[in-house]
Amino acid sequence: VSSPARRVPGSAVRRLSLYLRALERLEAEGVPTVSSLELASRAGATGPQVRKDLSHFGSFGTRGRGYGVPELRAQLWEILGLTHRWRVALIGAGRVGAALFAYPDFRRRGFEIVAIYDNDPAKVGRRWGGIRIRAVDRLPRTLPRSRIEMAILAVPAPAAQDMADAAVAAGVRGILNFAPVQIRVPAGVSVNHVNMAVELESLSFALHTTREGGETS
Amino acid sequence: VSSPARRVPGSAVRRLSLYLRALERLEAEGVPTVSSLELASRAGATGPQVRKDLSHFGSFGTRGRGYGVPELRAQLWEILGLTHRWRVALIGAGRVGAALFAYPDFRRRGFEIVAIYDNDPAKVGRRWGGIRIRAVDRLPRTLPRSRIEMAILAVPAPAAQDMADAAVAAGVRGILNFAPVQIRVPAGVSVNHVNMAVELESLSFALHTTREGGETS
Repeated sequence: VSSPARRVPGSAVRRLSLYLRALERLEAEGVPTVSSLELASRAGATGPQVRKDLSHFGSFGTRGRGYGVPELRAQLWEILGLTHRWRVALIGAGRVGAALFAYPDFRRRGFEIVAIYDNDPAKVGRRWGGIRIRAVDRLPRTLPRSRIEMAILAVPAPAAQDMADAAVAAGVRGILNFAPVQIRVPAGVSVNHVNMAVELESLSFALHTTREGGETS
Repeated sequence: VSSPARRVPGSAVRRLSLYLRALERLEAEGVPTVSSLELASRAGATGPQVRKDLSHFGSFGTRGRGYGVPELRAQLWEILGLTHRWRVALIGAGRVGAALFAYPDFRRRGFEIVAIYDNDPAKVGRRWGGIRIRAVDRLPRTLPRSRIEMAILAVPAPAAQDMADAAVAAGVRGILNFAPVQIRVPAGVSVNHVNMAVELESLSFALHTTREGGETS
């Protein structure tokens, strides 16, 4: 695996995650090798996409024999930084926060929620899976002590920027933002945005434009 | 507003949703007009992106005066198909389903969950906000009667394809998939995928590649 490539498109990185999942299923089925075409088909991509996405990171597979399933799985695991155990803060202990906290894929892939913050006095002090929910005003002092590098932001839109600022000031370098608003961060900090309403609206657009005559009611 | 354009890139459509949110905030602040630059800044885009994204749908704004805030808000609302009330089925009444059901932005934007399905006998028959949770094996008969056009899929990965097939067979034309797996649908059906673990892994990649020497532990 060659040294990290910083200019890999975000869409390619997201496909690596999908290839990784497909490889895990293949490995569970005991399949030893896979062609780029078969891997593509299982991950919802095309063969050329698979080859191009992987080419950012070196040379993989053997011409005519495809990729070794366990080998490529391990390489993608490393490329995606999943050999590192990421210590994550969950900011916002509402319904979205609760669903994320329970999401089994996070822990399985090395993302461990080690701190939870909320501004609701009724929630502060409660425990989720052994973690005590802290007041957000204690974030600046307690977050750095926990050696946390990532934050999941599950707060209402008006609070998102302030919470992001506090997390970044406390040393967080990556934010997964679920608030339906863009947040600004300094250079060197990464933000990914999961906006469920935006996804639903883009579905609405797709369906709306294929309705006969664009009828609305 | 010109007739629907089908070849608008998905990324442009997602930005329209962000412009819409920015315009709503501007309208709430009583701001009558906005430049493409200011709108871009509030939505995390660039001025040329705003102008290009809007140009897919006709001519907006006045040179030198910018866009009328309430006018453009109403036009985007229509372009995104939000004047239509979408009847939505929630398939999967677990923690992710519960968080989505409670998500206030959905209803506010015309997406109304009118049916809920789950395969857990302990959940079937319970009510969420007046809606009785039904067994998934009743989906083929009950979903068409409810005139449902969209489904939110919040089931475990192994069940996702079967549930998507059943929803499509029952008349659903748009699926928002939260299961961490690609699903296949026939032409004419739209799928958007929200994969929270993929987003977290793409953050992991970004942070991993900027760590000194790519150190892992």
